[in-house]
Amino acid sequence: MKGTFITIEGPDGSGKTSVIQALLPKLEKALNQKIIATREPGGSRIAEEIRELILNPENTEMDVRTEALLYAAGRRQHLIEKVIPALTDGKIVICDRFVDSSLAYQGVARGIGVEQVAAINQFATENISPNVTLYLDIEAATGLERIHKNKSNRQYDRLDQENLTFHETVRSAYLELVENNQERMILIDASQDLEKVVQDCYAILLKRLAR
Amino acid sequence: MKGTFITIEGPDGSGKTSVIQALLPKLEKALNQKIIATREPGGSRIAEEIRELILNPENTEMDVRTEALLYAAGRRQHLIEKVIPALTDGKIVICDRFVDSSLAYQGVARGIGVEQVAAINQFATENISPNVTLYLDIEAATGLERIHKNKSNRQYDRLDQENLTFHETVRSAYLELVENNQERMILIDASQDLEKVVQDCYAILLKRLAR
Repeated sequence: MKGTFITIEGPDGSGKTSVIQALLPKLEKALNQKIIATREPGGSRIAEEIRELILNPENTEMDVRTEALLYAAGRRQHLIEKVIPALTDGKIVICDRFVDSSLAYQGVARGIGVEQVAAINQFATENISPNVTLYLDIEAATGLERIHKNKSNRQYDRLDQENLTFHETVRSAYLELVENNQERMILIDASQDLEKVVQDCYAILLKRLAR
Repeated sequence: MKGTFITIEGPDGSGKTSVIQALLPKLEKALNQKIIATREPGGSRIAEEIRELILNPENTEMDVRTEALLYAAGRRQHLIEKVIPALTDGKIVICDRFVDSSLAYQGVARGIGVEQVAAINQFATENISPNVTLYLDIEAATGLERIHKNKSNRQYDRLDQENLTFHETVRSAYLELVENNQERMILIDASQDLEKVVQDCYAILLKRLAR
């Protein structure tokens, strides 16, 4: 595939959505081309329905392996309908979350094991992997504070209800993924001001895309 | 687990539902105990929601690997919420479809490959396997005829729309599964009258349950 597949990863509250929003127009201008921004889970009709099922706060009885399989199913559909066609077309795709999220959340924080979660995701992706992944690093407590500030008027979703320990485990899982995938994954200090975080992401992506 | 896990398998139109309905009271009377009858996909609130997503005729754009992952997700939830608690309780559970269905339908007929579909199902079941599986064997054409007769007043679901070749592939996949799992799987001639099919199933299960 001729395109470039970029993923943005990070714990909840690391600012992925805001960063992508600010980054996109800057990158499009610099490269003089349209970039496809999409998110996981979701991004296609069926994948959005799967997303609703996963995030529905009523589904408290959902087993962790069910959750992992549903994420993989949503990922597959999103990949087939949206990501692969764009990459085949030579486009740049920026995706909010991908396999690394499942490895950190379901594999480590939920305790299933990284290898097993990696296996069902290999089934889902047929080994399609991002060209580059920006990991927005933030301390769990700071990330949670941000979420709570942003969501004061909204209902918390199921994952927000998890406690601080869970989010700390997610963060250390991500740090280990970065350690083990140094060529693909780049750590960004997401505790900085949004403007500075965007600038860091922008500089790294420009350099990578120019290769 | 102290209970006994029985699964009923077969192509569409093999009569699984009717057989289970007639078989259940006979078995309960003979064994003097309540038997849990359940079905796949579904059997719990979340699993039923997943089932709706899979069988919705509007979801024509669903990828075969998405479908396989959704079946595995529904299976996992059903197993955790319904099957395992009953087996732990020492009950007999009869389940309409289980992993063999995914191996035949998604693994062989949809062309993903049996080993790959088996792997995501091992993730889902953690290797919980039926004690005995009755395979209701019927020629694809006869099975399809039965479906069309029974559904004349209803909407076809997405899988009924598949063609005869697909159903023939499903049958031959089942026959190979029986060949490779002779200790667990027993072939029943489902082209016979319902009464005779039920009698055959009843005789085999009584013998197995008396072990």
